[in-house]
Amino acid sequence: MARAKVGVLLSGCGVYDGAEIHESVVTLLALDRAGAEAICMAPNVNQLHVVNHLSGDVSGEKARNVLTESARIARGKVRDLGTVNPSELDALILPGGYGAAKNLSDYAIKGADCTVHPDVARLIKTMHAAGKPIGALCIAPAVVARVLGAERPRLTIGNDASTAATLEAMGARHQACSVRDIVVDYEARILSTPAYMLAEAIGEAASGIEKLVHEILAMVAKE
Amino acid sequence: MARAKVGVLLSGCGVYDGAEIHESVVTLLALDRAGAEAICMAPNVNQLHVVNHLSGDVSGEKARNVLTESARIARGKVRDLGTVNPSELDALILPGGYGAAKNLSDYAIKGADCTVHPDVARLIKTMHAAGKPIGALCIAPAVVARVLGAERPRLTIGNDASTAATLEAMGARHQACSVRDIVVDYEARILSTPAYMLAEAIGEAASGIEKLVHEILAMVAKE
Repeated sequence: MARAKVGVLLSGCGVYDGAEIHESVVTLLALDRAGAEAICMAPNVNQLHVVNHLSGDVSGEKARNVLTESARIARGKVRDLGTVNPSELDALILPGGYGAAKNLSDYAIKGADCTVHPDVARLIKTMHAAGKPIGALCIAPAVVARVLGAERPRLTIGNDASTAATLEAMGARHQACSVRDIVVDYEARILSTPAYMLAEAIGEAASGIEKLVHEILAMVAKE
Repeated sequence: MARAKVGVLLSGCGVYDGAEIHESVVTLLALDRAGAEAICMAPNVNQLHVVNHLSGDVSGEKARNVLTESARIARGKVRDLGTVNPSELDALILPGGYGAAKNLSDYAIKGADCTVHPDVARLIKTMHAAGKPIGALCIAPAVVARVLGAERPRLTIGNDASTAATLEAMGARHQACSVRDIVVDYEARILSTPAYMLAEAIGEAASGIEKLVHEILAMVAKE
């Protein structure tokens, strides 16, 4: 059997203004150990802003580029999302971090009225239409809910009532989930896990992410 | 038994100008899963430079701060190395990445004639003098060799002959090692693994790092 090719959609490098680093790396490790090929990608746009991760404050620094910063997590091997053809991929995973809500979409500012970067929306729609599974970690299910809300996908962001309500306002059906577990909508082929929406330690986030990766690869293998 | 407290000395955020992200995160995950507490720390100094991780070129950007960038890997929970008392720690691990050779030391420029940041040298010397184990990944053994070379520690950076010769010029005894394995100097209580000096995939690096973390915690438990 050919190695499964799984897109990993990054949104920068750092939980407060980009992709959550632990979630991204644990995803890459789980994919590699399961024999799958990870194809890292990110949109070639500027970040909403740069956050000083020591102080938590927005820095006055000129916005960094999402693709260039994502390359740190990918050790240089990251594709410009605009050049990725969904037919290259068997599945897609979106790690979390505020980058999903600030750079892949403007969910952090506009909530249920957010818009999603057109290349991100196109990728999610095309993968979904082709019946390919999509996994979303942490807050990234908000992006999936915005793009595919009309199909009423079952998703989780953990147990935060106000975030869950926003996902439902976009059409999703929210299901509470513990940190080491996953929610799978087998019909929509959408998987999610709370990760750092709930995790207090990296091992907790990793348990859910590993389950999600294994389940997504099982779906790909059944094709 | 009290949870082991293990210092993880970061050097920025990104393989080409800071700490190697995969090595750092795999270290944190292995420590957490083994029940140990990771205490992330980094020197509060500017990076040598910023490298665009997409192109590989040095960017014209103003140098970023090592502590602030390390906070991305640590999700904000990182200590200024200057405030860390070695008596707080049971062991120390240095992930690799060029940051070890550019920010913790100037090994990348001066090779065997390098100097090590005084707070880094102090931490390594004090930990070593107290008999506490020190682990070094990838190129980080160069920093340990420079500080403790007079004691002729047995170390590995994989199998690169020229780098090995430089470590030996600083006093270390180099031992070739495969990517999934570790070298342990039980007398000096110094452990090393090649990680991305040799790894072609994250799973390879992780196997060696996990072995190193388990062995270092076994040493701490025997105290």
